[in-house]
Amino acid sequence: MTSPNKKQRITKSKEVTCSAPVNIAVIKYWGKRNTALLLPTNSSLSLTLNQDDLRSTTTIRASPDFVSDRIWLNGKEENINAKRLSNVLSKAKELRKEMEEKDADLEKLSEWGIYIASYNNFPTAAGLASSASGFACLTFALSQIYDLSINLSQVSMLARLGSGSACRSLFGGFVKWEMGTKDDGSDSLAIQVASETDWPGMEALILVVSDARKDTGSTEGMQLTVETSELLKHRIEKVVPQRMLDMEKAIAEKDFDSFAEITMADSNQFHAVCLDSYPPIFYLNDISKAVIKVITALNARSIHTDPSGKKKGYKVAYTFDAGPNAVLYMQREHLSEVLGVIDYLFPRKSTQKVGEYYGKAKEVLENVDKTNVAKVCDGLGLKQWPKGSLTRIISTSVGDGPRVLSKEYDSEASLLTIDDVAKQI
Amino acid sequence: MTSPNKKQRITKSKEVTCSAPVNIAVIKYWGKRNTALLLPTNSSLSLTLNQDDLRSTTTIRASPDFVSDRIWLNGKEENINAKRLSNVLSKAKELRKEMEEKDADLEKLSEWGIYIASYNNFPTAAGLASSASGFACLTFALSQIYDLSINLSQVSMLARLGSGSACRSLFGGFVKWEMGTKDDGSDSLAIQVASETDWPGMEALILVVSDARKDTGSTEGMQLTVETSELLKHRIEKVVPQRMLDMEKAIAEKDFDSFAEITMADSNQFHAVCLDSYPPIFYLNDISKAVIKVITALNARSIHTDPSGKKKGYKVAYTFDAGPNAVLYMQREHLSEVLGVIDYLFPRKSTQKVGEYYGKAKEVLENVDKTNVAKVCDGLGLKQWPKGSLTRIISTSVGDGPRVLSKEYDSEASLLTIDDVAKQI
Repeated sequence: MTSPNKKQRITKSKEVTCSAPVNIAVIKYWGKRNTALLLPTNSSLSLTLNQDDLRSTTTIRASPDFVSDRIWLNGKEENINAKRLSNVLSKAKELRKEMEEKDADLEKLSEWGIYIASYNNFPTAAGLASSASGFACLTFALSQIYDLSINLSQVSMLARLGSGSACRSLFGGFVKWEMGTKDDGSDSLAIQVASETDWPGMEALILVVSDARKDTGSTEGMQLTVETSELLKHRIEKVVPQRMLDMEKAIAEKDFDSFAEITMADSNQFHAVCLDSYPPIFYLNDISKAVIKVITALNARSIHTDPSGKKKGYKVAYTFDAGPNAVLYMQREHLSEVLGVIDYLFPRKSTQKVGEYYGKAKEVLENVDKTNVAKVCDGLGLKQWPKGSLTRIISTSVGDGPRVLSKEYDSEASLLTIDDVAKQI
Repeated sequence: MTSPNKKQRITKSKEVTCSAPVNIAVIKYWGKRNTALLLPTNSSLSLTLNQDDLRSTTTIRASPDFVSDRIWLNGKEENINAKRLSNVLSKAKELRKEMEEKDADLEKLSEWGIYIASYNNFPTAAGLASSASGFACLTFALSQIYDLSINLSQVSMLARLGSGSACRSLFGGFVKWEMGTKDDGSDSLAIQVASETDWPGMEALILVVSDARKDTGSTEGMQLTVETSELLKHRIEKVVPQRMLDMEKAIAEKDFDSFAEITMADSNQFHAVCLDSYPPIFYLNDISKAVIKVITALNARSIHTDPSGKKKGYKVAYTFDAGPNAVLYMQREHLSEVLGVIDYLFPRKSTQKVGEYYGKAKEVLENVDKTNVAKVCDGLGLKQWPKGSLTRIISTSVGDGPRVLSKEYDSEASLLTIDDVAKQI
């Protein structure tokens, strides 16, 4: 119940609404050399997923009437002074303030209060790191509302202060996070390696294995590995630098075979250094291992070695973040085969609702020859798992970077209704 | 049905019966630099388990009447020409032949045929490497029957040709396998670091997790790791050499805290390099991981850091070979507490027979205060697993090296009865 008077009190204000995508790394980030500035111990590289399917959306409204900054995540107000969040906000305001000091004509937005509302369209149950898309969206929206004269890589540094891997969600396609070497983190930022249109047709399947909360969060886990794993040092110094070069080459050449080999090797190695930690960290469970076995068998069926000794014919690559869920990357022509095999070996339970369980994957599955899939799986000696071993299947693709949905108040786009805002004043 | 005549035909013969123990490494052997001579990529160190509980027993009978060599394993005749077996036999005969050439008075045993019968008293289901105790017993028995003038480390080289880790079963107590550097393997042998009486009271619990055959055998698995793991190189060059020194020091000082730390770290790292292989090798399953969590929690309860920064108060160490079964090492005073906790968290199913399931562990458990154990586990937030998650529990201790059970035909000790032998001629 908002009176017209209250509405009219908001005389001066500015609002933007943006969305930003999720990213899933193929060369993993694991370990910080500076935990305050979120500077990593190695570079990493990820693929940006399509925000038509998975996204964070954020509205920021700035107004001189707002006496304090406030934030709502998925409709629930959260602490605006949470350390990483406040680092991001104060840095963004500082950049705005510098601009205002140089140009007296600019509105003093840095002195206004801001209200932030952010939503993720994917359930926490999907096991996706909402902090990456969330902080990417927040910083992108801040750069828009403050008209910051910085490029996207510079925005990515701001996002990095909120969540390391968030910096990679500032671009679409194939994105690397250069670890940088400077103590102040000014060279630790994201760069687009290739856009989603440079290498089109890259599909992703997310196999959600478990809703269970993980034992070891990634922030805590990666520092345990830094402190206790003797193998991590070798990974950081020797393995990752070469893999980054090899992966960039694979992407430039649209060489799926090399892409798949490096992706799977790096996922394995990330989980290996977790296991080499003390106490050991396990993110893969028996279902995750079964998925690895299936993908290995499926690839083995089509792989051959060419005269130069290179393995060719990979159909699909797996990668696992700090949890049991699998992300599979493949080119479009193999999507229905891979999905068919996964669906056959990890069948849905009748109590799992078709719409929620499959999402867009349902359409792809309609064209799968199930008899043939069964024959292929049986021929590979792969056994069916109990129904309900997966929680859901998300089918998406590689997509673009953050989008501006509106640069002024727009009742369609805004997550902060005039009513909400007025109520809070 | 054997006629007295046939018995009398065995005019000249020689027989020995020996037993040899199992060993479980605390610094793991994983990778060969020479697959023919079974030369390892790194040194390793193990504890020899008590052969009163777990052993291989072997009878060798040599006779000029035997027209060919033959072997029976657990009562079933096996191929005497299997490569590793035949390598061991021909090398032993060669050593005997050299002695015969130097001393004309010696019986020409190297020209006689030999019959070998070998039994393991532990079921394959125990998941213990029977090849280690088996080849240790075979070579020890060969050295006895041929009166080879070589020391036990030299016998261990012979055992190594049959199964790498067998060389460590030639000694009791704490045994290292020096990897050596020579191409012919003449310096790759076992040495006793300390006897079972130098550091008495070391107990072992084997938690048998699964009867299922493993996907990847260790011979095959370790070479996959050598070929594909980028982390293994670092383990071999940097980590293991230091750990060998640290572990020998821990044993010399009877420092269980350091012993436990290194043992668990090295088990973790061995499984980490397996995971870093392509395709990744998994030996630990969800039950193995649960055991690790329990041991970590149990230790955390008593660990404190002394003024020098060293962690003290470890009660028990886990180690896992190439399979899901846990081996726990602890000093005698903690056996009942550890066993009580394990038994409470991984309860027996009523269909698992008490005698088979617990063996000697039954007596220890009779003195456990079950109410207190339940309180401790609940306090640590550890949940009970479904009944029957373990297959059996084997309680044993660190023990002595190979034993000669008889040096002539002895109907009590012999695994080859006169009847059996006569029948085969």
